[in-house]
Amino acid sequence: MSYDVVIRGGTVATAADTYRADVGIRDGRIVAIADSLADAREVIDAGGLLVLPGGIDSHVHIEQPGGDGSMTADDFESGTRSAACGGTTTIMPFAMQFRGRSLRETTDAYRRKAEGKAMIDYAIHLIIADPTDQVIGQDLPALIKDGYTSFKVYMTYDDLKLNDRQMLDVLSLARREGAMTMIHAENSDCISWLTARLAATGRTGPRYHCTSRPMPVEREASHRAIALAELLDTPMLLVHVSGREAVDEIRRAQARGLKVYGETCPQYLFLEEANLAMPGFMGAMCVCSPPPRDRANQAAMWDALAGGVFQVVSSDHCPYRFNDPKGKMIAGPNAPFWKIPNGIPGIETRLPLLFDGVSKGRITLQQFVALSATNQARIYGLDGRKGAIAVGADADIALWDPKREVTIRNEDLHHNVDYTPYEGITVTGWPVHVLSRGTVVVRDGRPLGRKGHGEFLRCRPPEAAKPAGRRVVPAELV
Amino acid sequence: MSYDVVIRGGTVATAADTYRADVGIRDGRIVAIADSLADAREVIDAGGLLVLPGGIDSHVHIEQPGGDGSMTADDFESGTRSAACGGTTTIMPFAMQFRGRSLRETTDAYRRKAEGKAMIDYAIHLIIADPTDQVIGQDLPALIKDGYTSFKVYMTYDDLKLNDRQMLDVLSLARREGAMTMIHAENSDCISWLTARLAATGRTGPRYHCTSRPMPVEREASHRAIALAELLDTPMLLVHVSGREAVDEIRRAQARGLKVYGETCPQYLFLEEANLAMPGFMGAMCVCSPPPRDRANQAAMWDALAGGVFQVVSSDHCPYRFNDPKGKMIAGPNAPFWKIPNGIPGIETRLPLLFDGVSKGRITLQQFVALSATNQARIYGLDGRKGAIAVGADADIALWDPKREVTIRNEDLHHNVDYTPYEGITVTGWPVHVLSRGTVVVRDGRPLGRKGHGEFLRCRPPEAAKPAGRRVVPAELV
Amino acid sequence: MSYDVVIRGGTVATAADTYRADVGIRDGRIVAIADSLADAREVIDAGGLLVLPGGIDSHVHIEQPGGDGSMTADDFESGTRSAACGGTTTIMPFAMQFRGRSLRETTDAYRRKAEGKAMIDYAIHLIIADPTDQVIGQDLPALIKDGYTSFKVYMTYDDLKLNDRQMLDVLSLARREGAMTMIHAENSDCISWLTARLAATGRTGPRYHCTSRPMPVEREASHRAIALAELLDTPMLLVHVSGREAVDEIRRAQARGLKVYGETCPQYLFLEEANLAMPGFMGAMCVCSPPPRDRANQAAMWDALAGGVFQVVSSDHCPYRFNDPKGKMIAGPNAPFWKIPNGIPGIETRLPLLFDGVSKGRITLQQFVALSATNQARIYGLDGRKGAIAVGADADIALWDPKREVTIRNEDLHHNVDYTPYEGITVTGWPVHVLSRGTVVVRDGRPLGRKGHGEFLRCRPPEAAKPAGRRVVPAELV
Amino acid sequence: MSYDVVIRGGTVATAADTYRADVGIRDGRIVAIADSLADAREVIDAGGLLVLPGGIDSHVHIEQPGGDGSMTADDFESGTRSAACGGTTTIMPFAMQFRGRSLRETTDAYRRKAEGKAMIDYAIHLIIADPTDQVIGQDLPALIKDGYTSFKVYMTYDDLKLNDRQMLDVLSLARREGAMTMIHAENSDCISWLTARLAATGRTGPRYHCTSRPMPVEREASHRAIALAELLDTPMLLVHVSGREAVDEIRRAQARGLKVYGETCPQYLFLEEANLAMPGFMGAMCVCSPPPRDRANQAAMWDALAGGVFQVVSSDHCPYRFNDPKGKMIAGPNAPFWKIPNGIPGIETRLPLLFDGVSKGRITLQQFVALSATNQARIYGLDGRKGAIAVGADADIALWDPKREVTIRNEDLHHNVDYTPYEGITVTGWPVHVLSRGTVVVRDGRPLGRKGHGEFLRCRPPEAAKPAGRRVVPAELV
Repeated sequence: MSYDVVIRGGTVATAADTYRADVGIRDGRIVAIADSLADAREVIDAGGLLVLPGGIDSHVHIEQPGGDGSMTADDFESGTRSAACGGTTTIMPFAMQFRGRSLRETTDAYRRKAEGKAMIDYAIHLIIADPTDQVIGQDLPALIKDGYTSFKVYMTYDDLKLNDRQMLDVLSLARREGAMTMIHAENSDCISWLTARLAATGRTGPRYHCTSRPMPVEREASHRAIALAELLDTPMLLVHVSGREAVDEIRRAQARGLKVYGETCPQYLFLEEANLAMPGFMGAMCVCSPPPRDRANQAAMWDALAGGVFQVVSSDHCPYRFNDPKGKMIAGPNAPFWKIPNGIPGIETRLPLLFDGVSKGRITLQQFVALSATNQARIYGLDGRKGAIAVGADADIALWDPKREVTIRNEDLHHNVDYTPYEGITVTGWPVHVLSRGTVVVRDGRPLGRKGHGEFLRCRPPEAAKPAGRRVVPAELV
Repeated sequence: MSYDVVIRGGTVATAADTYRADVGIRDGRIVAIADSLADAREVIDAGGLLVLPGGIDSHVHIEQPGGDGSMTADDFESGTRSAACGGTTTIMPFAMQFRGRSLRETTDAYRRKAEGKAMIDYAIHLIIADPTDQVIGQDLPALIKDGYTSFKVYMTYDDLKLNDRQMLDVLSLARREGAMTMIHAENSDCISWLTARLAATGRTGPRYHCTSRPMPVEREASHRAIALAELLDTPMLLVHVSGREAVDEIRRAQARGLKVYGETCPQYLFLEEANLAMPGFMGAMCVCSPPPRDRANQAAMWDALAGGVFQVVSSDHCPYRFNDPKGKMIAGPNAPFWKIPNGIPGIETRLPLLFDGVSKGRITLQQFVALSATNQARIYGLDGRKGAIAVGADADIALWDPKREVTIRNEDLHHNVDYTPYEGITVTGWPVHVLSRGTVVVRDGRPLGRKGHGEFLRCRPPEAAKPAGRRVVPAELV
Repeated sequence: MSYDVVIRGGTVATAADTYRADVGIRDGRIVAIADSLADAREVIDAGGLLVLPGGIDSHVHIEQPGGDGSMTADDFESGTRSAACGGTTTIMPFAMQFRGRSLRETTDAYRRKAEGKAMIDYAIHLIIADPTDQVIGQDLPALIKDGYTSFKVYMTYDDLKLNDRQMLDVLSLARREGAMTMIHAENSDCISWLTARLAATGRTGPRYHCTSRPMPVEREASHRAIALAELLDTPMLLVHVSGREAVDEIRRAQARGLKVYGETCPQYLFLEEANLAMPGFMGAMCVCSPPPRDRANQAAMWDALAGGVFQVVSSDHCPYRFNDPKGKMIAGPNAPFWKIPNGIPGIETRLPLLFDGVSKGRITLQQFVALSATNQARIYGLDGRKGAIAVGADADIALWDPKREVTIRNEDLHHNVDYTPYEGITVTGWPVHVLSRGTVVVRDGRPLGRKGHGEFLRCRPPEAAKPAGRRVVPAELV
Repeated sequence: MSYDVVIRGGTVATAADTYRADVGIRDGRIVAIADSLADAREVIDAGGLLVLPGGIDSHVHIEQPGGDGSMTADDFESGTRSAACGGTTTIMPFAMQFRGRSLRETTDAYRRKAEGKAMIDYAIHLIIADPTDQVIGQDLPALIKDGYTSFKVYMTYDDLKLNDRQMLDVLSLARREGAMTMIHAENSDCISWLTARLAATGRTGPRYHCTSRPMPVEREASHRAIALAELLDTPMLLVHVSGREAVDEIRRAQARGLKVYGETCPQYLFLEEANLAMPGFMGAMCVCSPPPRDRANQAAMWDALAGGVFQVVSSDHCPYRFNDPKGKMIAGPNAPFWKIPNGIPGIETRLPLLFDGVSKGRITLQQFVALSATNQARIYGLDGRKGAIAVGADADIALWDPKREVTIRNEDLHHNVDYTPYEGITVTGWPVHVLSRGTVVVRDGRPLGRKGHGEFLRCRPPEAAKPAGRRVVPAELV
């Protein structure tokens, strides 16, 4: 039997093991892992390279309009190209419901945006901003059957946030249908109250974005989200956890046996408040929510990664161009912080930044694989197909040079954004070749991908979403 | 110099010390504490008795109408009579604002209800249900100056609850004016969501009141309230804390140096869920919020009392007659639990039940005095005048027989309620004589009080409400 | 290329992934994992079976004499046969130093015992009972180079225990040489003090073994061991952790970023104090240290497994025959508990009992693989060779029928012991075929192994033993 | 009836209350507290002053020889004079048993040292260094009956330390006889191991005293002490707790309902490691054990005081002259840190330093009284007689000027030491007049005391030493 592609002489690493092996690919899938494979149409020399599952970036915002007229800078083409160049082979952007709009139509429309453009595969999360009876009773159950098995809800942002009762409705539905709920946990009222005070006292520069949403604001909402999920015994994932106090809430929940999962992002490992205090309007580049915390917090976050608190590192890529009337400048260069579109780019830098933690001994190579790909697959119902170097899995593979030192420069990145918050940071380890379903989409760091190669992925209801079986209220009620 | 009254031969106990002394009273005040006092118009023999500060019951509902047409069973006459018979000499009921109503008028009207009726002194807390600009900017500052220096806010009950932003407005005002905020912490949305499920599945008996507000519902709101107060560095008190998980949140807050105070009540020390599962509609007698928890929880609550987590034990006396169309039966004897007026009587039994903990060695006599009177005075701005056996203080004194065994029977109580949830419980220790400003209002357990003897107390902004000085956000903003 | 053996049609599970694949074996190693493999000398049908890494039992006592004349019942032949029948393909028994005896000679002598007898591979831990300068300065560094890279120290047992200063010597050596320290954590003085009281009051039956070493005795020593390791920034593993309070200490240590690993055993998941209170002397069968705790503790231990607190589940197989003058009866059938040899058999039942947790949904299949084999390999320097279904790894493989229900009966087990503490427990899942380096050593549950097939394994200094990098004292000192 | 002394016009503060009153004294006791007292032989004008219970310094070393030939610098005369000038009216030094010496003789000899010299009253703790059967079975029960109801044990110092089994013997005796155990908690082996390393690497200056006993060394021993006490359900007090990690252990113990009391000292509120790193040998002045920690730790300690973790603030006055061959220079000015006598003076500065916390709003006036006097009386069985402004109590009273600012200068102090570690610190609040049993011993800050005025105090078995009633092992065993 012959192979379409053989990756020869590399060192395979999974979330469990590291070993030297050739990897044989046929029809886009991994069909053999062996000490020596011949008979290949194409051979990729992986000598000195790590053969890793391509990353899954399970939290990205692509072609997503804002209520204020803003538009994220990457479409499915540039976004997936940039992702691939960073070692990612699956992205999971959001179909965002606007209030009063049909969730089904929203989803279908978003699905159409992706068609013919993506260079790597994608699954789609839903954002539930309006959990009407129609949404809860009809649309969501049907969409889950169609492969949209995860959704995000917001506890903040006026046009998106759900109240606690709506949260319970969504969590209850998730429990019934086996879907995974992602929660953006910040206390909306606190933010608006503090913002009003900051506005009233003339504190409007980007740096005050941090002041408007301090750590207890996130801790409170995290604890509340956990309590709601605990009440219904529903697994869920807290997205973009930024700091220690929220980490402690997750640890306590996990210690009580709850299935509370956690995600963090490179901005909480590499950025800090000071980045928002850069001169002039420059700080706007790092405005995202929750904001980065202080430097000591970065170490605490690495510890939490090493200690198993988090399952997922995503980019929360939410790209806005700096000098752009649809981007950070939407309200001009003197806009108050609350008018600056929230979000930073990071789809391409996510994995190199995380891998640098392997190089520095902060996390193990196995943890990198788990945090970058394998856990995402498990948590969002893509396991068996994505996130693994395993027979039968899609041949989504990134070949990393673990010794390559790279100083991050925006001019070398492939997103459609005019800056990167990580400019000038030097990391060790970089993906050199990337395959999507057996097709080389990045070679020697250069994108080769073809628009439309990427396909939509139907997700299964994940095992990880099964109730843990600890009941606060009788099962009949939840 | 002669005395109006001398209490002779008793054992004085304060929150700090226990010693044998005579107590001399003149013009309603304690003017001398000495080894031997003569020259008294009246001598009360306190041989074998403890001479304690009369209790302050800082959480009672008197003559308070409900939105549903219910009315608490005790007016200022019966309520203060019953309080006095239980060793209490000051009560602090609530002037409750209805939404859309003037806080000033509410307060004035409530004040008038008390006039001419009370047998012991009273201060008045405000309930803020509608924190409009008028209330926050004008009424409250003025009322605080007039001696109403504490107010309660609710996180649950549709017609009372504040959202988090309103809570911040109130806490910020409290910080500015030095007032004390009391918080009823239960998550409203969780309760209504669970209640809807219980209703939909036909679970409507009194016992399901417990199911509708399980421990995490209270824990969540407690944590949230703490976070809000922490954000503004504002001291506050969590009322009627029912159980372990909320206790843990308070402990954690106190360990971070926050001024978070806690109150619990006898129902969480002596009752349990099973009391709501009595046959027929009997369980309605014990419907209160938060509900009693399980039996193991009672021990945890005693531990928390002994360990200093709580500062205050109040009754949360909220009396409804059982067989009464304005009481527990307002919606008939088959009413679903959510139509049963919330609350239980306890103004007279509060202190004997707590004192039983002294007799059993669970708390010390000094802790009893602190938890029953001294701390309340300090937290609500009555120190110097109430809550102490001290020169210059009002002669509000309860003489306790620490050996007397009493089996609680409703027929022996003096409230206007047709039951007590504590029927049949035997306690050791009972107040035999009680003085209010030097006047004997209870002798040998029988009320002698005169309507109108009780006076309105203006409270000072309490020291306990001063910020702790730990800043999450800059002081200029809060 | 042809294969010696192909395992066909099974479902491979690693600590990371689950997938359908054939596994090809040549020269005792896994050389191919592929969708379909032909050309095999022998084909094993794995249809409906799970293909798992053979277990590593990293805590067993084989042919180990006691100071009291006792002798563990299994030698390397029966012990490895029994292990293999339970799905284990590597054992790690202990070469135990007696005080005053050379560590090198002890090790060599023990090594000779194994030769020609073992049916599966084995590595050897050292027990350091006498950390003299010779041992610390010469013997241990040399032995570590020879592949003995882990050692156990005891905080209890008069003839074995080290004091804290000796513990620091050992931990410091481990840090320098990159070895892994295993710690038996119980406070010796507490046990002897309580035992003396029990003896003095005539409480000598087996059940009092539990009374003599209650939970705080283990919690204290666990906290102390953690503090010692923390002082020197040395990774270590707490063996046979029995219950909640010790789990909490480990959790706290891990949350501070320490490399504290934990091991537990089936006895803490399936047994309880009541097992030691069986009539007559029967309770002696379950005398082990630490003792099993109460039933609620079992659930807490499962939670800790699911939550990632533990890395390792071992058997602590320490087999003594019940009716045997070298076993439990060494001091007769009325012996006081402190004369009963400590230990229970479990080398064969370890994995089926743990797998039952997969069947019941308590842990995932990936966690089973990690806890039974992969983590042990990583922690003890056998990764790459053992504990994995991976190309290049030894073909140590267990084929499990995940649906098979088995009621454990001692008559069906293969150890040399006349009872099992798990008699009558029914589990779901059982290993049916087992391969050691490509050789079938168990087929259809029956042992086929050949004496002497098993080889000695030299362990590498494990990555897991590298310091975490958090300094309490300057690195120059430790 | 006339009074020997009346303190007129002051503001009395107890651990519970603050109020304006005159205090009347007759025969050395407080006999009246009243709004106005006449008929006094002597009147002390207390206008503008606080009338506080004289302090109890329950942890001082007076005329105590060291095993190395050192001798504390203060005898009962200078020590009590200095104490009185600092507002203290009772001291509790230690009769220290040397190993192999009779405890009874030790105690009698120490008692004789005090006779005729003390200017204020004193009780005596025992130090148990050799808990033989004679000591446990005979001497201690008899001494407890004679009024020595508290004793200290050491977990470190070669000539003093007890092992855990001896600790259990002492705790068990304390439980039986109702005595209070004080525990010096540091892990001896860790200190000696680190000291050996420091010595071997030439790090011998005073600053390395801190390196030799870092925080985990104290935390470990604190946790161990708590576990031992928990096992036997015996109340105890941890002395001179220095920092956060130990505080956390105490908090956790208190939260489980254990009667674990805590003491801290001004050195942990005002000093820091940097004080030991002063040039030359100057750092020796601040060598004490445990050592001061970092500056952030000071704030944590104040929080713990405010939060109720500690019951007692003592000085641990252990005075050695700096330029003195029996003091800090005993081994010369270049001595390695482990030869420097451990201890610092502080008997006179203890209360002014603590009172400064009242002035700065860190603790309340009531907490000051409790922490300086009232709690000590309660914990050591002197309540009713000492530590209170109460009728019947000894007239041990300190009159404080709460507004007086004083910069601490050794030349102004009255101890027999040639330095103070607090030189140059300015505090607000100072004791101006002090009475011991009605006799003025300090007037306007100048000592007037008469040698021999001070009497020996027999202590009762304290209520605080009664078991909490939570059993780890059956009561019959402990």
